[in-house]
Amino acid sequence: MASAREPIDFYFDFLSSYGYFASLRIEALAARHGRAVRWHSMLLGVAVMKTMGLKPLLETPLKSDYVLRDVARYMRRHGLQLRRALTDPFMDPRAAARGFYWVRRHRPGKEAAFARAGLHRYWVEGADLGAPAAVAALAPVVGAEPAEMLEGIEGEVARSDLREAVAASLARGVFGSPFIFVDGEPFWGNDRLELVDDWLTTGGW
Amino acid sequence: MASAREPIDFYFDFLSSYGYFASLRIEALAARHGRAVRWHSMLLGVAVMKTMGLKPLLETPLKSDYVLRDVARYMRRHGLQLRRALTDPFMDPRAAARGFYWVRRHRPGKEAAFARAGLHRYWVEGADLGAPAAVAALAPVVGAEPAEMLEGIEGEVARSDLREAVAASLARGVFGSPFIFVDGEPFWGNDRLELVDDWLTTGGW
Repeated sequence: MASAREPIDFYFDFLSSYGYFASLRIEALAARHGRAVRWHSMLLGVAVMKTMGLKPLLETPLKSDYVLRDVARYMRRHGLQLRRALTDPFMDPRAAARGFYWVRRHRPGKEAAFARAGLHRYWVEGADLGAPAAVAALAPVVGAEPAEMLEGIEGEVARSDLREAVAASLARGVFGSPFIFVDGEPFWGNDRLELVDDWLTTGGW
Repeated sequence: MASAREPIDFYFDFLSSYGYFASLRIEALAARHGRAVRWHSMLLGVAVMKTMGLKPLLETPLKSDYVLRDVARYMRRHGLQLRRALTDPFMDPRAAARGFYWVRRHRPGKEAAFARAGLHRYWVEGADLGAPAAVAALAPVVGAEPAEMLEGIEGEVARSDLREAVAASLARGVFGSPFIFVDGEPFWGNDRLELVDDWLTTGGW
């Protein structure tokens, strides 16, 4: 039965365009196979720069040009229009990520709705989500008050929850966005969603 | 007509497992669309380390574990068996790459056959191709004498041809193996072959 199957773990960074693209497809993909999705907000910067010792994608010669082109053609293919360009200055993603873990703790089960709203606000509407107040403005999406969420985002518990979640993601080997686990099997990248689909269909190989 | 269509450009490094995997499928993929394949031997080390300033894949924390697992499951899925493990010490790929450009100059049109033979020797048979003599032993594949090819590999022309080819690959933005251009459109990675197929079918997006 579907209910006996483990949820799919879906890791994303609010900052990651490929993570945003995958967020639009992961729920439908999982549902086709009778799976739920467990969302996890992670911090790519901590993984890539601090743990892996790599430069950010868009500061990497050759690869940065390719990524800009790849994202543009993906958007054309999928009919997506964004007000946020990859070349815009990045926001600090920590307030959004703390908001996510505040929701997990105080409105459990609504993390995905919050994540989708935040990703939409940032990528589609082009709004800055770097400030805690901007994140807290999303509170109604999960049935909370902005003031309540703002206090949470700025409090020690949300900070600590995020730190723990990021440490756990690294311990599990998550180094990119999106990053997906199906029954423990890791898949990195938006371009692997078809492979995840195949894995779920066939039971793996 | 098919004959009027530009060949697909296929860049690979003899050292790259993903490049080897793609080499097994690229000709059939291109042929389905009435395209020829123009093969290019490149040096990942020059691109990644010298130009991009990144560490080799298998020396990158987190990503190295993922790649080992990804390669293993790809091999299971496609029924591939190799005698070469990714964790084996790498050969110096320059002799094989010089051999490739020697073939292009002296047995034009046989580069692909030479590349496939070299990749098979290294990945499937697990032989070391680091020494010029080991590369020259492949000469019969292209109708040449090993002594003739060995002299060529060790000569200045093959070195210079390789240097020029690597510089040209970097100038074109090639930073990975495999790397493919379809009518100027770049695709990086073995996991993008399905996208190349779609691009060829639809004419792009």
